[in-house]
Amino acid sequence: MKTKHSSHTNEAEAPKSFFGRFRKLKCFTLALACVSAFAFAPTPAVAEEEAADYSSVIALALAPAQAAVDAGIEEAEDYLALLERQGEYAFAFDFFVVSMLWTCIAAALVLLMHLGFATLEAGMTQAKNTVNILFKNVFIIAIGILTYALIGFNTHYPADWIIPNVLGFGGPIGDLNADADGTFGYGGVGLAMTGFGDFIFQAMFAATAATIVSGAVAERIKLSSFMIFSLILVAIGYPVVGSWHWGEGWLDAMGFADFAGSAVVHGFGGFAALACVIILGPRAGKYVDGKIRPILGHNLPLAAIGVFLLFVGWFGFNGGSVLSAEPEELGLVFTTTALAASAGGLTAMFVSWILIKKPDLTMALNGILAGLVAITAGADAMGPMASILVGIIGGVIVVFSIIFLDKAKVDDPVGAISVHGVVGIWGTVAVGIFGGANFGVQVLGAVSVCAAAFIFSFIIFMILKVTIGVRVTAEEEAEGLDLCEHGQEAYPDFSPSSH
Amino acid sequence: MKTKHSSHTNEAEAPKSFFGRFRKLKCFTLALACVSAFAFAPTPAVAEEEAADYSSVIALALAPAQAAVDAGIEEAEDYLALLERQGEYAFAFDFFVVSMLWTCIAAALVLLMHLGFATLEAGMTQAKNTVNILFKNVFIIAIGILTYALIGFNTHYPADWIIPNVLGFGGPIGDLNADADGTFGYGGVGLAMTGFGDFIFQAMFAATAATIVSGAVAERIKLSSFMIFSLILVAIGYPVVGSWHWGEGWLDAMGFADFAGSAVVHGFGGFAALACVIILGPRAGKYVDGKIRPILGHNLPLAAIGVFLLFVGWFGFNGGSVLSAEPEELGLVFTTTALAASAGGLTAMFVSWILIKKPDLTMALNGILAGLVAITAGADAMGPMASILVGIIGGVIVVFSIIFLDKAKVDDPVGAISVHGVVGIWGTVAVGIFGGANFGVQVLGAVSVCAAAFIFSFIIFMILKVTIGVRVTAEEEAEGLDLCEHGQEAYPDFSPSSH
Amino acid sequence: MKTKHSSHTNEAEAPKSFFGRFRKLKCFTLALACVSAFAFAPTPAVAEEEAADYSSVIALALAPAQAAVDAGIEEAEDYLALLERQGEYAFAFDFFVVSMLWTCIAAALVLLMHLGFATLEAGMTQAKNTVNILFKNVFIIAIGILTYALIGFNTHYPADWIIPNVLGFGGPIGDLNADADGTFGYGGVGLAMTGFGDFIFQAMFAATAATIVSGAVAERIKLSSFMIFSLILVAIGYPVVGSWHWGEGWLDAMGFADFAGSAVVHGFGGFAALACVIILGPRAGKYVDGKIRPILGHNLPLAAIGVFLLFVGWFGFNGGSVLSAEPEELGLVFTTTALAASAGGLTAMFVSWILIKKPDLTMALNGILAGLVAITAGADAMGPMASILVGIIGGVIVVFSIIFLDKAKVDDPVGAISVHGVVGIWGTVAVGIFGGANFGVQVLGAVSVCAAAFIFSFIIFMILKVTIGVRVTAEEEAEGLDLCEHGQEAYPDFSPSSH
Repeated sequence: MKTKHSSHTNEAEAPKSFFGRFRKLKCFTLALACVSAFAFAPTPAVAEEEAADYSSVIALALAPAQAAVDAGIEEAEDYLALLERQGEYAFAFDFFVVSMLWTCIAAALVLLMHLGFATLEAGMTQAKNTVNILFKNVFIIAIGILTYALIGFNTHYPADWIIPNVLGFGGPIGDLNADADGTFGYGGVGLAMTGFGDFIFQAMFAATAATIVSGAVAERIKLSSFMIFSLILVAIGYPVVGSWHWGEGWLDAMGFADFAGSAVVHGFGGFAALACVIILGPRAGKYVDGKIRPILGHNLPLAAIGVFLLFVGWFGFNGGSVLSAEPEELGLVFTTTALAASAGGLTAMFVSWILIKKPDLTMALNGILAGLVAITAGADAMGPMASILVGIIGGVIVVFSIIFLDKAKVDDPVGAISVHGVVGIWGTVAVGIFGGANFGVQVLGAVSVCAAAFIFSFIIFMILKVTIGVRVTAEEEAEGLDLCEHGQEAYPDFSPSSH
Repeated sequence: MKTKHSSHTNEAEAPKSFFGRFRKLKCFTLALACVSAFAFAPTPAVAEEEAADYSSVIALALAPAQAAVDAGIEEAEDYLALLERQGEYAFAFDFFVVSMLWTCIAAALVLLMHLGFATLEAGMTQAKNTVNILFKNVFIIAIGILTYALIGFNTHYPADWIIPNVLGFGGPIGDLNADADGTFGYGGVGLAMTGFGDFIFQAMFAATAATIVSGAVAERIKLSSFMIFSLILVAIGYPVVGSWHWGEGWLDAMGFADFAGSAVVHGFGGFAALACVIILGPRAGKYVDGKIRPILGHNLPLAAIGVFLLFVGWFGFNGGSVLSAEPEELGLVFTTTALAASAGGLTAMFVSWILIKKPDLTMALNGILAGLVAITAGADAMGPMASILVGIIGGVIVVFSIIFLDKAKVDDPVGAISVHGVVGIWGTVAVGIFGGANFGVQVLGAVSVCAAAFIFSFIIFMILKVTIGVRVTAEEEAEGLDLCEHGQEAYPDFSPSSH
Repeated sequence: MKTKHSSHTNEAEAPKSFFGRFRKLKCFTLALACVSAFAFAPTPAVAEEEAADYSSVIALALAPAQAAVDAGIEEAEDYLALLERQGEYAFAFDFFVVSMLWTCIAAALVLLMHLGFATLEAGMTQAKNTVNILFKNVFIIAIGILTYALIGFNTHYPADWIIPNVLGFGGPIGDLNADADGTFGYGGVGLAMTGFGDFIFQAMFAATAATIVSGAVAERIKLSSFMIFSLILVAIGYPVVGSWHWGEGWLDAMGFADFAGSAVVHGFGGFAALACVIILGPRAGKYVDGKIRPILGHNLPLAAIGVFLLFVGWFGFNGGSVLSAEPEELGLVFTTTALAASAGGLTAMFVSWILIKKPDLTMALNGILAGLVAITAGADAMGPMASILVGIIGGVIVVFSIIFLDKAKVDDPVGAISVHGVVGIWGTVAVGIFGGANFGVQVLGAVSVCAAAFIFSFIIFMILKVTIGVRVTAEEEAEGLDLCEHGQEAYPDFSPSSH
């Protein structure tokens, strides 16, 4: 999401980066005791950002003064000269205030996506496992935000590397407003947001990877194992792999382009899910005598609510990744995001209609999501027609991938591996086709991130399997996780059909 | 939504309009092939806008400098003189950035309304048709956005007319950022948004008309016929009729006032629905032996979710129609919108309580929507007390209209014809009573738009009836569209009561 | 929410307050007749605000010009000098436009919370009372907004007191844009929003108190009595008690700190609920032979949707209470809000897991809400680690409080008294521990507000009890309020298990 540019015309004038100023942590007397347990990082690193390039903003900002001069307003000439000399200094405050507001609103929209995931997963699975899925989703958003404050943010954007460009492991966030109003710590030079703004937006992203896993492993995973696995994934796996790109690690150094995270968020989550699903095995009754027996989602309105909310929230996910309110890029990103989603949805509708002879709602819903995942890497880098094509291809891929994985007996109740993992790779590679990025680097980046997610998850989940176990018993699975794990039913007033 | 003003003080200084600059379409090699099939427009027209009037913004913007002068800050005098001479040039950049951000956020809110429509329609109909309704709503938002990119936007805002002020048929959108940063193509002179911003906001509106139809024809329409009809309605009918008002067509020339579309969106959709419902006939079992037998909505929480989301999203629908972040108008629009919704809801509650002796939830929900539809045309043009009155009258009308249409055997499962069509006319006319518009023009405009929607829809839907048919068979209707059209159930884990 | 500061450096320069200008009400010929019935206030008071302190904004705004000077851009020196002399005048317009936009968006987010309350309450109660709960929630938002326009706003922010600093009773709002563009009626001097912006944001708050009551009294309260009680609570009780703090009443004079309303919104609602629940008594079958028999919520996905939407909307509730787009405070408030919610949710999960041996979804959900209520008073006044602690303690309190109240036979179906009342007190007191406020004043304020809410509600509800009655009959309760009060079922297509 952090777009890096090579032209830092003001670096000499503003040598200190934005986050470099936050090293001096304020004392929270009580909090320190609480936090000390977590402060096992080799260095209490804090995120450090390179200065972003706001030349397009400055060009837009100067245009009115230039137009005034062109219109013969003579007094404007001196004013324009001043503005030109000042450059980004002239517009930093107003642009900063707007951009920071957008970052916060975008964070709220990404939180809305978590409700989308919760309802989508609940709707696509059986009624007897609904409480379990909702519980997991509440847990994930809470643990995701908390661990991102305690470890993740400073691991994601490491100030100091343990293994250069590969591994930096950070400590808790401090007072991310510190020093900002005494100096020029914002706007045209650093990020167009406060440190807290950057934190809250990124924190909402962090839990996404674990949420993607949640859907794929639903209906048979042991709650405690899932919670431990998610904690490790979100606290360590996600930010470390993410640092390769957004933390100025080795992928960033190669020029890897992944605007809002087709690879480093969705691909990561999808391939983490694949590892877990392989270890976990399919749900009982899914593959019997070599045949696939569909296990139906119990509440398709819930699933549809989920996908619509994800669509709405994705405007925050992609739009917020502009990292400012730069109006040209914002409009482009909203447009490409919506077009790809629409194209993906329509394509999946018609492809599945042809293949399975019925207009399938769940395929249509997954098609919308496939379009969204596909455009995530290049929403800022291509025009409307290219975004439609990227969405169309995403919609084709997701249908075939879901059917293929099902034939391969990889049991993914919600299609998360296909939607986020497989299409996530497509979206990343697509930037090398339509978005001007280096094709080889895109392939390398997508494969590296997904492989890392797979291997990391496989190791952690395998350790859990041989220690505390990862799967509920056959009896518990038959009874449903709601009653056996939680002692609660999602719909106690209604009798299931199967009784 | 496009407020037109006659005072263009800077026209001489900025003779070229904002969208006029987008004629030079960028080449998308691959996309062109894909698009050529659609490029049957007589001219590859692109949207053209008249310059908006930002005098209230400039007045607000100059006030602080004036206050500084008044407060005796002498240096501010030269500064004020410069600002005054520069006029809109002085404030364009900042105002533009904020306004563009709001446009994008408003687009996201209007997308949320589509989830509102989906859940409202699903909740107000039977469980056996839920998958069908959700599928239609996913289709509509996707096809609506895509056709708006390929045809609708440039038809809605025609650069060239085929029949002057009545019919202009456009081609696909191009690169709507083109030329914007090299010149003064934004802010005080043109629209306070980029072309992409304008596109995405309007695209979210486009699908609304078709969504309104979706609810009225639910539970017996053939899926394929609905999809073809929606495609034609959203790609051609909606933007052509809309161009009469927002595209500077004949209604705009007469001074017709319809701020965010009581007539050109809601009235249009409601009367398109009426045509379809008349051709389609009522659901089986609705009118038996001259008696009305209510067919109950299966999930009222879903319906309530829908109405609340529509209420929230309407702040984007009406608020975004300010087309900038002009603070006075924005605050007024939010206030009148909320007051009319509240007044409509309360009124419908009590009127239906008196008429049918029970406090009816669905009437209360439709009352909220009636208040929202009623204020849509004049949200910017009247004060709080007038908006309450407009909402109250809307709430009365909707209850009587629903009861009347039911007696007339016009079977509309969700009340869409009353809420959007009948109350849409009221809202448009109300601007001629409380909002200072010409009463006769308002009546003429509302009737023309609704008649056009009716006739267009009647013709298209009748052609579909005599060719591929528009209604499922009696057996399919009895079984439910979910199983017969989609082979899916919305709630497979639960048995319906009727079994 | 209104942060008052003693340093008004520009008071001499801008002696007139923002709202003081709105006394001249515009004539709404028709509306006046409608309104006259409400205009029984001793003075037609309108809200008056003290000037807010924007020194942190000015500091941020000056920083870029200072940096330009530091970077050796000589022309910037004169410019900086001008900006410094102008102070808030220099930045008022842009900051005002952004802040006003945020206020409006925040109002929409708080409206989303009302959908959250509706679904949470519906999900946590029985299917047979769902229509009733939804109807009540639609009523509350509508009556809340309307009465706030007709009485509440000017009672909440009284221009004239009847009993000084304790009771001011106002009339209807006027044209809250009046005079604003002719003078410097905004920005650095008054509030960074128009009067309509202030109104709509506060109006969305007003209904919250009554909504909190709605959940606690669910499943046995008589609809008409609830509607009358809510009307009185929201029209009189809430704004009068709120004026003690936000209307510059006696609590404000003492330095009471309650940023977004842990006490004056949530504590108020929670203790109003307690009074009603005590008078109403528990639901039939809840406490039998000295044993507690749980009455299960019928739809936990609805409950989870509610809590997620409340979480998202709370960013508007707390974030909007910044009352501007001041970037440092905004980022801090978003961060502390999210961290407290997460900490509260995780804590309640584990505490209830230990206490009742199962990971309980409803406790987790109430833990998220407890974290949010707890941080509401001090979201702007403490750092991230303190906010985590505040959330943790809120999460502990809510579990013990729910269990304790249940043992005390205070039957609260959704836990509203604990979540909003008890934790609301904790949140208010916490600002005296972590947020630098006076501990004694915080305790006094929290207790006063909650006691006032309890006594006011007790009196009103008792009068209703002895006149028209407050509880449905035992037969009606057994049958469910949906059929007996509304003649409607929420899910007519499905048979309840109990039949």
